[in-house]
Amino acid sequence: MPTSPLARGVWGVVATPFAGSTLDVDEASLGRLVAHYESVGVTGLTVLGVFGEAARLSTAERAAVLEVVVDAVSLPVVVGVTATALAPAVEEAELATKIAGDRLAGLMIQVNTADPKQLAGYLRAVHHATGAGIVVQDYPVVTGVTIGAAGLAAAVREVPAVVAVKAEAPPTPAAVAALTAGTGVPVFGGLGGLGLLDELAAGAAGAMTGFSFPEGLVACVDAWRSGGYPAARAAYLPYLPLVNFEAQAGIGLAIRKESLRRRGLLMDSGVRPPAPAMPAALADQLGRHLEVL
Amino acid sequence: MPTSPLARGVWGVVATPFAGSTLDVDEASLGRLVAHYESVGVTGLTVLGVFGEAARLSTAERAAVLEVVVDAVSLPVVVGVTATALAPAVEEAELATKIAGDRLAGLMIQVNTADPKQLAGYLRAVHHATGAGIVVQDYPVVTGVTIGAAGLAAAVREVPAVVAVKAEAPPTPAAVAALTAGTGVPVFGGLGGLGLLDELAAGAAGAMTGFSFPEGLVACVDAWRSGGYPAARAAYLPYLPLVNFEAQAGIGLAIRKESLRRRGLLMDSGVRPPAPAMPAALADQLGRHLEVL
Amino acid sequence: MPTSPLARGVWGVVATPFAGSTLDVDEASLGRLVAHYESVGVTGLTVLGVFGEAARLSTAERAAVLEVVVDAVSLPVVVGVTATALAPAVEEAELATKIAGDRLAGLMIQVNTADPKQLAGYLRAVHHATGAGIVVQDYPVVTGVTIGAAGLAAAVREVPAVVAVKAEAPPTPAAVAALTAGTGVPVFGGLGGLGLLDELAAGAAGAMTGFSFPEGLVACVDAWRSGGYPAARAAYLPYLPLVNFEAQAGIGLAIRKESLRRRGLLMDSGVRPPAPAMPAALADQLGRHLEVL
Amino acid sequence: MPTSPLARGVWGVVATPFAGSTLDVDEASLGRLVAHYESVGVTGLTVLGVFGEAARLSTAERAAVLEVVVDAVSLPVVVGVTATALAPAVEEAELATKIAGDRLAGLMIQVNTADPKQLAGYLRAVHHATGAGIVVQDYPVVTGVTIGAAGLAAAVREVPAVVAVKAEAPPTPAAVAALTAGTGVPVFGGLGGLGLLDELAAGAAGAMTGFSFPEGLVACVDAWRSGGYPAARAAYLPYLPLVNFEAQAGIGLAIRKESLRRRGLLMDSGVRPPAPAMPAALADQLGRHLEVL
Repeated sequence: MPTSPLARGVWGVVATPFAGSTLDVDEASLGRLVAHYESVGVTGLTVLGVFGEAARLSTAERAAVLEVVVDAVSLPVVVGVTATALAPAVEEAELATKIAGDRLAGLMIQVNTADPKQLAGYLRAVHHATGAGIVVQDYPVVTGVTIGAAGLAAAVREVPAVVAVKAEAPPTPAAVAALTAGTGVPVFGGLGGLGLLDELAAGAAGAMTGFSFPEGLVACVDAWRSGGYPAARAAYLPYLPLVNFEAQAGIGLAIRKESLRRRGLLMDSGVRPPAPAMPAALADQLGRHLEVL
Repeated sequence: MPTSPLARGVWGVVATPFAGSTLDVDEASLGRLVAHYESVGVTGLTVLGVFGEAARLSTAERAAVLEVVVDAVSLPVVVGVTATALAPAVEEAELATKIAGDRLAGLMIQVNTADPKQLAGYLRAVHHATGAGIVVQDYPVVTGVTIGAAGLAAAVREVPAVVAVKAEAPPTPAAVAALTAGTGVPVFGGLGGLGLLDELAAGAAGAMTGFSFPEGLVACVDAWRSGGYPAARAAYLPYLPLVNFEAQAGIGLAIRKESLRRRGLLMDSGVRPPAPAMPAALADQLGRHLEVL
Repeated sequence: MPTSPLARGVWGVVATPFAGSTLDVDEASLGRLVAHYESVGVTGLTVLGVFGEAARLSTAERAAVLEVVVDAVSLPVVVGVTATALAPAVEEAELATKIAGDRLAGLMIQVNTADPKQLAGYLRAVHHATGAGIVVQDYPVVTGVTIGAAGLAAAVREVPAVVAVKAEAPPTPAAVAALTAGTGVPVFGGLGGLGLLDELAAGAAGAMTGFSFPEGLVACVDAWRSGGYPAARAAYLPYLPLVNFEAQAGIGLAIRKESLRRRGLLMDSGVRPPAPAMPAALADQLGRHLEVL
Repeated sequence: MPTSPLARGVWGVVATPFAGSTLDVDEASLGRLVAHYESVGVTGLTVLGVFGEAARLSTAERAAVLEVVVDAVSLPVVVGVTATALAPAVEEAELATKIAGDRLAGLMIQVNTADPKQLAGYLRAVHHATGAGIVVQDYPVVTGVTIGAAGLAAAVREVPAVVAVKAEAPPTPAAVAALTAGTGVPVFGGLGGLGLLDELAAGAAGAMTGFSFPEGLVACVDAWRSGGYPAARAAYLPYLPLVNFEAQAGIGLAIRKESLRRRGLLMDSGVRPPAPAMPAALADQLGRHLEVL
C-alpha cells in the first residue's frame, strides 16, 4: 500500500464524549462533534489519541468510536495507537485498518525509545504489519521518552512510510524547524495550539490538536497561507486567551470537554478517571472566555 | 465470590520467554520456568506483571501465556493488569478470570491516582466487574503516580476485596510497616528483593518479585519464619550480590532473563523493544555471580 | 520590624545583563533596564530571582546587582534567595537586608518541602533571623518540590511574616483561587504571564514575572482593576503571542534577554552556562513578534 | 599546578555532624569521625559533598568544616562544590583551595549540562581559576542532568585536569566500564556502595561514598586487589545488608548518621531540614544490622 504525506492544514484531535454517571461512550455526541469539525473546514481528524482518552477505552469501545467517526463524516482519519510496543500496537493497528479502510490517513505511533535506530525499526515494523502510513508522535510528557529533534529526524529519514510528525516536545518551534529541515515529511504542532503561530513560522504544515474552537485553528492556518504572520496573528488573537486557558496541565482535557459541552457539541463533559475534573473555581472564567468568541 | 488474603511466602513474578530473532512467546521455556518455580517451593506465581513484559504482549499472547502457566503447574496465580483505567482493565481482568478460573488468587491492579477515594472507587469497580480479589501494586517508577503509604492504606481500608499490597514505592521498609499496621491485608515486597530483609522485619508477608534465583527468596522467607532476622540474613546473604546486580535500573529485566537462560530455564534471553538489552560489559560479571550460587 | 503585604500590581522580575564573551555583570545595562521598569509604572522589582540567574552569580556579583538596582530606581524590591536551607538562606538574606535596607519589600524564599509544618518553620526562621517579610515562591519545575495549594495555604497561615505568594505550580489559576481564599496574603502569578488573565480572574493581586514587555503586564493589571475581564483581555491581547513565545521551556530566558536587547535595554543578550542560548531558528520570528508591539 | 589522578582505594564521603536542636556544626564529632576514617585505612576523604549536606551550610560553616577536617587528619581531601555554574563554583573553589592548600586532591564538580563541549568548558574554567584537579561527579538524581557515559567520557577526554570521575548515574557498572575504557582517569563508584562489587569488576578504581562502615568498603577494595572477585565478595558480604538498608531513597542520610551515632562516632544524628529524619519504624532494624557487624 503506497502511503502519502499527510495533507497540510488542521487535523482535529477528537475527544471521546461520555454520558452520565456511568461514563459510557456517547455516540450521538461524538457524531455531532465530528460533524462540527467537518463543517468548520478541518483537513482531517485524529481519533483515539491521548486526548481522546483512548487509554481508558476497551477494545470494543475503540472500535465503536472509530466506526461512529468514519460513518458520521467523510474526512480522512489518523488513528492513534496507545500501546508502545510492537505486538499490542499491531493489534490496535489492525483494528484501525479494518474499520477505517481507505479512510485511514495514518496510524499515530508514539516515540517509545531515545534510540533512533530502534525507533526506526519499530515504525517500520508497524508499517510492515499493516501497510499503513505512520504519524510519529513525539510527546515526552506522556511517554517519558526524550529523543530530541536530531534523533527523531534521523529515525524518520530511515522510514519512508512516515507520513507526518506530531511535534510535542517543548520547546516546539525550534523542533519543528529542525524536523522540517531534516526530513521530507510534514510536521504538525499540537499542545492545544499554544505555540501555533511560532510553529507555522518554523515551517509547520498545520496543527493537530484538540482545542475546543477548531474554528480558530483553521482561521489561523488559512490566514498564514494567504497572508503570512500578520494575517495569522490577527486571525488567531481572539482565540489565544482560551488556548492558554485550555492548555493548563492535567485539567486541560476536562476544560475542553466542558467548553465543547457549553457550545452544544457534547451532552456531558465527563472525563474518565483518573483524569481530573475541571476545578469548580474555573467555571466562571471559562464562561468569560466563551462569551467573547 | 468471596476473596481471601494472599497466602504468605514467595510469589514468583514470571518472566515471559521469547524465542529467537522474532521474539515469539516461547511456551516451552515458560512451562519449564514455572515448573522450576513450583519445584523450589514458591507459594504462588504472578503472571503478566511489568517484568513479564505484559505491556509488550498482544491479547492473544497474554491469553497463551496464562494458559501455559495454569496448565504447567498447580500453583495459585496473581494476574497482572496492564491498563490503568477501568474499561480496559476490566477487559483484561475478564480474560484472566476466564482462563485462570479458580486458580486466580488475585488481579494485580496498579495505583493510578494519588487520591485515596478515587483509587478505592477504581479498585472496587474492578472487583465488582469480575468478583476477583485485588492485589494493589504501588509502583511509582512505572506509573508516575505517588500516593504515599498513608493514602494507600486509606484506600485499601475502604475495599474489602483487596487481598494484598505489593509495596514498590521506595523507601519500602517504612511503607511496609505503615501499610501492615494500617490495613488488615498482607503486604509484599518487590523490587527484585533489594530490601527483603528489611521488609520482612517491617512486617511483610513475603516477597513478590522476579529475582532469577527464587530459591534465595524462599530460603530467606522460610528462615525468617523459623529463626527471625539472624536466620533470614544468613540464608539470604549468598544471594545478595546477585540481587543487587539484577536490580540495576532499566537493564534488570535483561540481566534476569540472561541469568535464567544460563541456568537452563530459558532457551533465549531476548527482551522485547524498547526494553534495553544487557550490556556486553556485564557478561563476565554475571558469570562470577552465578558461579558461586 | 513590622512587615506589610506586598502592594498589588506588577512586580518586574529583573534579568541580570552580562557583557561580551566574559559574561561579566553589565551594570550599565542593568541600570537602564530597571529605569525602564520604573518608567512603565511597575509597582516594584524582584531582583536575584531564578530568571535573574542568581544561582549563577558569585556573592560579590549578587551584592553588586542589588546595589545597582537600589541606586538606579526608587522602587521597592523583593530579593530572591537561591539557597533552599536555613543557614545559607539566612546568609543571603542578611546580605540583601544590609544592601536594600528599608527598600526591601520581602525576601523571596522557595518552597523546599512538601510538609506544611516544616515549611512554616523554615519561613518563620528566615524571618526571625532578618526581620524581613517573606514572599513564598512555589515553583516545582525549579525545586522539584510539589506541596499543593492546600498544603501551601496551611503553611502560609502559620507565618504572619509572609507578605505574598508567587504561585508557579501549574495549573496556576485554581491554585491562585485556593491560596487567595485560604490565606490573607496577596498572591501573584508568574510563569511569564502565560495565565495572567485567568490568574487575575482567580483573585491574583498582580503579576511577578520577567516578560520582556512589562508594559503589557501593567496594561493588563491596570485594565483589570478598572474594567474587569473584557478590559484586561483587550489590553493584554496584543502581547499574548510574545508571552507564549517567551514562555518556551528552557530557552525562555535567552529569548527574553534577546528581546530586551533588541528593545535597546540591554547591550548584550548573553546567558550564563549551562542556560541554553536562543536557537538561531527563532531569530526571525522574534523579530515578527517585536515588529507589531 | 600539576594535577595527579586520584589514588585508588576508598575515599570516605564525610557527613557533617550537627548538635542538638539548633543543629549547629558539631566540630568535636567531626574530628572524631574523620579520625576514625583515617584509622580504618581510607585513601582520602571527600568533604562538603551532597551527603555532607554542603548545600545546607553557610559559607562560614563550610570553611569551619574543612578546617576541622584538615587539622584532624593528614589525609588528602576532595572538596565538594555545591554550585553548578562558574562564578559561584569558583567562589567555593577558592575557599577550598585556600583552606586545604596542598592537601587538596581535587574539587568535586557536578555535571551541569548534557552537552559534552559545554561541560568540558566548564570544568576547564574551574580548573583554570584555581589550578586544582577536578573530580567530576555524575549524579543525575541530584542535578536532574543526564549526560550518558559516552558524552561524559568525551568531555573528560578534553580536560587533562580531570583527576577522577564519580559515577553515580545508574546503572553504574556498565558506566564505570565505559568511562574507564574511554578516559585515562580513575573512576569511583558511589551510591552508598550498592554496586561496589560490580563496579570494581567493571574497572572502578575504588569507592567514594558515605557508607557508615567504611571498614567494609576498605575490606572489599583491598580484597579485590589481592584476591579478585571471590575475595572481594567474601569481604563485602557481611556489610551488604546494611549497605542496602542505608541506600534507601531520601532517608539514607538520616540512617547513616544514626548508625554513626550508635557507633559512638557522632554525638547526635540530626539532619538539617528539609532532609527527612529516619522513620521511627526502622530503629529496631538498624539495631539488628549493627549487632552483627
